Amino acid sequence: MPVKLKFWDEQIATKFAGFVPDKGIDGFLGITIDSFEPGQLVASFKVLPEMVTMIGNIHGGCISAFCDHVLGVVLYPAMPKGSWAATTEFKINLLRPVSEGVCTASAEVIAMSKSTAVVRIDVTNKKRLVAAAQGTCLIMGPQS
Amino acid sequence: MPVKLKFWDEQIATKFAGFVPDKGIDGFLGITIDSFEPGQLVASFKVLPEMVTMIGNIHGGCISAFCDHVLGVVLYPAMPKGSWAATTEFKINLLRPVSEGVCTASAEVIAMSKSTAVVRIDVTNKKRLVAAAQGTCLIMGPQS
Amino acid sequence: MPVKLKFWDEQIATKFAGFVPDKGIDGFLGITIDSFEPGQLVASFKVLPEMVTMIGNIHGGCISAFCDHVLGVVLYPAMPKGSWAATTEFKINLLRPVSEGVCTASAEVIAMSKSTAVVRIDVTNKKRLVAAAQGTCLIMGPQS
Amino acid sequence: MPVKLKFWDEQIATKFAGFVPDKGIDGFLGITIDSFEPGQLVASFKVLPEMVTMIGNIHGGCISAFCDHVLGVVLYPAMPKGSWAATTEFKINLLRPVSEGVCTASAEVIAMSKSTAVVRIDVTNKKRLVAAAQGTCLIMGPQS
Repeated sequence: MPVKLKFWDEQIATKFAGFVPDKGIDGFLGITIDSFEPGQLVASFKVLPEMVTMIGNIHGGCISAFCDHVLGVVLYPAMPKGSWAATTEFKINLLRPVSEGVCTASAEVIAMSKSTAVVRIDVTNKKRLVAAAQGTCLIMGPQS
Repeated sequence: MPVKLKFWDEQIATKFAGFVPDKGIDGFLGITIDSFEPGQLVASFKVLPEMVTMIGNIHGGCISAFCDHVLGVVLYPAMPKGSWAATTEFKINLLRPVSEGVCTASAEVIAMSKSTAVVRIDVTNKKRLVAAAQGTCLIMGPQS
Repeated sequence: MPVKLKFWDEQIATKFAGFVPDKGIDGFLGITIDSFEPGQLVASFKVLPEMVTMIGNIHGGCISAFCDHVLGVVLYPAMPKGSWAATTEFKINLLRPVSEGVCTASAEVIAMSKSTAVVRIDVTNKKRLVAAAQGTCLIMGPQS
Repeated sequence: MPVKLKFWDEQIATKFAGFVPDKGIDGFLGITIDSFEPGQLVASFKVLPEMVTMIGNIHGGCISAFCDHVLGVVLYPAMPKGSWAATTEFKINLLRPVSEGVCTASAEVIAMSKSTAVVRIDVTNKKRLVAAAQGTCLIMGPQS
């Protein structure tokens, strides 16, 4: 059930989709935004050897940081210019171990008001669901 | 209400407390275990400029990855040798922005059986609570 | 992304779909199972005056109890006879107040192993999403 | 780490502590507020035969509704008169089955601003921790 957005800035969506992060945890993971539609995005990162722990899987923290990042990004083109979104809470179920390949997140805004939005995220790896998350972003308007 | 543990390996606790990670997301953050007691630990990482986003705060993903990491580590000395723990789910409330200084997590095991454990975490920065998390680890025994 | 089930007992699904609870919190709410398919169900309850608080809306606890109930029920026909499922954890976002009409939950199993299952739930009222939940059930086999 | 409250109305706390609910889910459960201090409360309900399911334990929904209720109530004396609090999200871990006796919740406000508050809850039964919850309330001021 996709939410009806009151606002959508295609230019901001395009800007995010072409962005290559060089620092922050999105830079560490190398997260890219692969597609962006009103209320929905697809993002991904490639599993690199330095993310893999002694047990042979990537650290769950990589996937939770990935979800945390995407949770806020999906809102940017849906907010008036100058606003910003910060994740205030989320919950994640880590469903299967990940050891290689690409992790892809599909994020969907399921509720949005002027001040908050709730987003759901599915993360897949090798065509299998590896994590499911749900959380809230706080939205700060340009003058607030 | 600290849980009564059936098992505690001081040697493993000491080993974790002296560990300096050089890869993985714990290496990116530079997480250290500062103290370790049965069912409880204190861990920390220093906020570095490369963790700070354009908005001036560290990425929430740093704190959620920190919690995810600590959630599993707190269980290691409380499990029979050869066991391992994987976070299967957690929830986090990000309470305040963090821009500099040290982030410190206090983790406490609040329930533990042979196959699962529930852990609560408080994260502070400059003596203020900045995040609160609660989650479950799956415990895999040596022969399982 | 509906999960592939290893097991499906149509008879149990039919039995649940016709069940009218007379006690327990499902009896208090009057929850009925309206349709049942492998890995998915639709359930509902009618908002009654005695559920409405002084503020004029139903207690959030009604909706969280509704989700908790449905989280376990959706698994019964997917487990070998004699098994039982207990919710071990869930998270809910209460998105809009509810004051009258019918609340309908759509539950979907998104991951399932022999011992656990993860379920997502959407609750609607008057064609609007009023709550979104995600949680884990522990599955106990007939001999365990 | 108890939060510092900007406001505390002893009269409202006393009023809640003496309240006997006769309807709503708090009436169904028979929840009473046993003690109330700034940022903290203790509440309880007695397990009655009609809450017990076929399996012999009370429905998890009773405990989640209990937490949902307490999450909002703990805030009332800490808000300016005429304000109201609504749970917007929470997460609960159900740690042990409950079949008889009294369930007691200790709730603590861990963060509070003008518009939101985060609360943690421990539920015990027969001196054992049976559930742990954490969630957010939205606060609406008298004129908002």
